[in-house]
Amino acid sequence: MGKMAPMMIFADCSSSTTAHHLLPFGRSCELWPSNLIHSYRSLSCSPLPLPNPSPLSLSYRSSSSTLCSAAMATESLAKVIDGKAVAKQIREEIAAEILRMKDAIGVVPGLAVILVGDRKDSATYVRNKKKACDSVGINSYEVHLPEESTEQEVLDSISRFNDDPSVHGILVQLPLPLHMNEVKILNSVAIEKDVDGFHPLNIGRLAMRGREPLFVPCTPKGCIELLHRYGIEIRGKKAVVIGRSNIVGMPAALLLQREDATVTIVHSRTMNPEDITRQADIIISATGKANMVRGSWIKHGAVVIDVGINPVEDAKLPRGYRLVGDVCYEEAMEVASAVTPVPGGVGPMTIAMLLSNTLTSAKRAHGFR
Amino acid sequence: MGKMAPMMIFADCSSSTTAHHLLPFGRSCELWPSNLIHSYRSLSCSPLPLPNPSPLSLSYRSSSSTLCSAAMATESLAKVIDGKAVAKQIREEIAAEILRMKDAIGVVPGLAVILVGDRKDSATYVRNKKKACDSVGINSYEVHLPEESTEQEVLDSISRFNDDPSVHGILVQLPLPLHMNEVKILNSVAIEKDVDGFHPLNIGRLAMRGREPLFVPCTPKGCIELLHRYGIEIRGKKAVVIGRSNIVGMPAALLLQREDATVTIVHSRTMNPEDITRQADIIISATGKANMVRGSWIKHGAVVIDVGINPVEDAKLPRGYRLVGDVCYEEAMEVASAVTPVPGGVGPMTIAMLLSNTLTSAKRAHGFR
Repeated sequence: MGKMAPMMIFADCSSSTTAHHLLPFGRSCELWPSNLIHSYRSLSCSPLPLPNPSPLSLSYRSSSSTLCSAAMATESLAKVIDGKAVAKQIREEIAAEILRMKDAIGVVPGLAVILVGDRKDSATYVRNKKKACDSVGINSYEVHLPEESTEQEVLDSISRFNDDPSVHGILVQLPLPLHMNEVKILNSVAIEKDVDGFHPLNIGRLAMRGREPLFVPCTPKGCIELLHRYGIEIRGKKAVVIGRSNIVGMPAALLLQREDATVTIVHSRTMNPEDITRQADIIISATGKANMVRGSWIKHGAVVIDVGINPVEDAKLPRGYRLVGDVCYEEAMEVASAVTPVPGGVGPMTIAMLLSNTLTSAKRAHGFR
Repeated sequence: MGKMAPMMIFADCSSSTTAHHLLPFGRSCELWPSNLIHSYRSLSCSPLPLPNPSPLSLSYRSSSSTLCSAAMATESLAKVIDGKAVAKQIREEIAAEILRMKDAIGVVPGLAVILVGDRKDSATYVRNKKKACDSVGINSYEVHLPEESTEQEVLDSISRFNDDPSVHGILVQLPLPLHMNEVKILNSVAIEKDVDGFHPLNIGRLAMRGREPLFVPCTPKGCIELLHRYGIEIRGKKAVVIGRSNIVGMPAALLLQREDATVTIVHSRTMNPEDITRQADIIISATGKANMVRGSWIKHGAVVIDVGINPVEDAKLPRGYRLVGDVCYEEAMEVASAVTPVPGGVGPMTIAMLLSNTLTSAKRAHGFR
C-alpha cells in the first residue's frame, strides 16, 4: 500500500496530456464543459505526484497509488475483450440466419442509408455499413443528397423508404447540415424501420418495465452483448456509466438496469466521478475524452467497456494521429479483470448490432421466427 | 461514536415488525421479492442489538449506532417538508391562473376520469380528484363503467374524450378489471391529453437530453417540486431513488438526472441497498414497504422524500390501521436535514401536479401563455 507505481506504466497514456480532437467523429458524445476537461487533463496520465492538483484530483494521489500497487501485487493483466472476434462471430450467425430466411420465405433484409453532404468521415461510415451489409447478405440502398438539399428532399427520401417493403431499416447518417431540423427528420423514420433505436418511443419502452423496445440502440446493445458473450454477470452488480448521451450513455444505463444491475450515471456535473466509478463492478465509458478514466478510477477486478474512439496526435504515425479510448488502457489492464481495447472493442460491435437490428426488423415484418 | 441510541427513538417504527398491507393501494409499486422483504422486516425497527441478523443487516448495527449518535450530537431534528402546505399554495396559483385564462380567452380546463368497476379505493381516488378539480375551477367529467364492460366500451369512452375539445386531460383509474389489456387502453389516450405522463413517448422524451415531455408524471413531478420549493439544490448532488416502478421510481430518477444530480436507482436486486443509500444527499423512496428505510440508511444531513403510503395495523385506531411511509420517520428525523411526512408529504403533491398538468394541457391546446 502506498508504494508508487513506476512511471513507465503511464507511458502510453502520458501522450494524452497533449491530446485533442483532430476529427469530428460521427455522432457526438455528451459535451463536457471545457473547464472540467481541463481539470481531467491536468491529472491526465502525467507522472506522479501531480503538479498543481485541481480540486477534482484531491483524492487522486493516494487512491491511485493504492490501486496501482494492488494491481501490481497480483502481477496479472486483465483479459482483453475481443470485440472484433465477437463481431465476426455475430456476423456469421446473422449471415446463416439470413440464408435460412431466404430459403424459407424468399425474403432478404434491406438497409437504406441516407447521406447528406460531403463529409469525408460520414462517407467512410456509410461505405463501411454497405460493406458490412454485403458481408452478411443484407441488401443495402443508399441515397446521397447534396449539402444544399432542402429538408423536404430528405423527408421525401425517408418517406419513400418508409413505404418500400424491401427496406427493413433506415439510417440517416448524422450530422445533418445545420440548416436542417435533425429531430424532425429523425422522427419521420417509421418506428418499425428505426434500426438505430433512437426514436423517443423506443427509448421510452426501453426505460419502462414490462415494455419492449422494437430496437435497442446499436452501440449500447453491443456493449451488453460483449458482457453476455464473455459470461460476465450483470444482475446485482454495481454498474457505472460515464456519459449520458442519448445514443450511448443513457440507453446503456437503461439496458444495464433492465438486466438488474444497480446503475449510476456519472456525467459532467458529477462531483468526484473517480470515487463513484471506483465502486463499480462494471464500467461503461462513453465520454469522448481521450484517456479520461485512469487506473485509479477502476476497482480491482472490475470489467471495463470503453466506447470512446478518440483521435490523439501521434507524430510517429504517417497519418499524424492514433485512436484511443476514454480509458487509459495500459492502466486499466493492470487493475481490471477485463477491458475492451480501442480500436477492436466496442467499435466492431456497433455495426454488427446494426445488422442484427435490420435482420430483426425483416423477421418481424414477415412474421418469420 | 458508538453510543447506543435510546430505544424510545424507535418506538413508532417498532410496530412495523408486525406491519403488513391491509389495503391494495392504488397504482402498484415495484414488487420486492418476499424473501428480501422478510430480511428487511427482521431488522425493521426492533431494539438493538438485533437477534439473528440476516446477511443484509450485517452492516446495520455499527453504522446505525454511529449515525444515530451523530444525529444525537447535533440535538436537532430535521425540517419537516410540508407537502400539504405546498400543495395548497400550488392549488391557489393554479386557481389564479385558470381565472386569468378564463378572463382572457374564455377557456376553462377540463379533466375526464374513466372508472371501471366498483373498487372502493378507486372510487375514493376519483372522488378526491373531482373535489380537487372543483377547488381550482377545473371542469371534471366522469365516466363510470360496470366491472363487466368490454375493453371496446372503455376504448370508446376514451375516444370520445380524445375528440372532445373541452377535455384537456384524460385519466384512466387503475387497476382495470383483469379481462382488459391495460397497456392497450392506456396507449389509446391521445398523447396531448395524457396528463398522467405515462405514455412511452413521454417517458422517452423525459429520458432524452434536448427533448421535452408533454407531461411529467405527477408523483415524481411532485417530489421534485417539493425540493424546488424548499430551495434544496439538486445539481451536482448524489441522489438515490429506491424502487424502479414505471410511475414513480424510474421517472423520478430521470427527472433528478435532468437536473444534473448523479443518480443511482436502488431496487430489489441491489446488493447492500443500505450502503448505497447512505451515500445520497437526496433520497426518494418509492417501494411501498412500510418503514423499510431505517435511520442507518441515511447520511447525516440528507434530504428524504418518502413516496410510500403504506397501511399498517394499529389496533388503537378505530379503523384498525394507520398510514406510514417507506422510511422510518422518527429515525429519519434524527439524521436527515429534511423529511417528508406520511401522510401530508408527497401525497397532496401528486394531485396538485395532476391539476397543474391539466392546466398546462389547456394552455398548450389554446396557445395561451
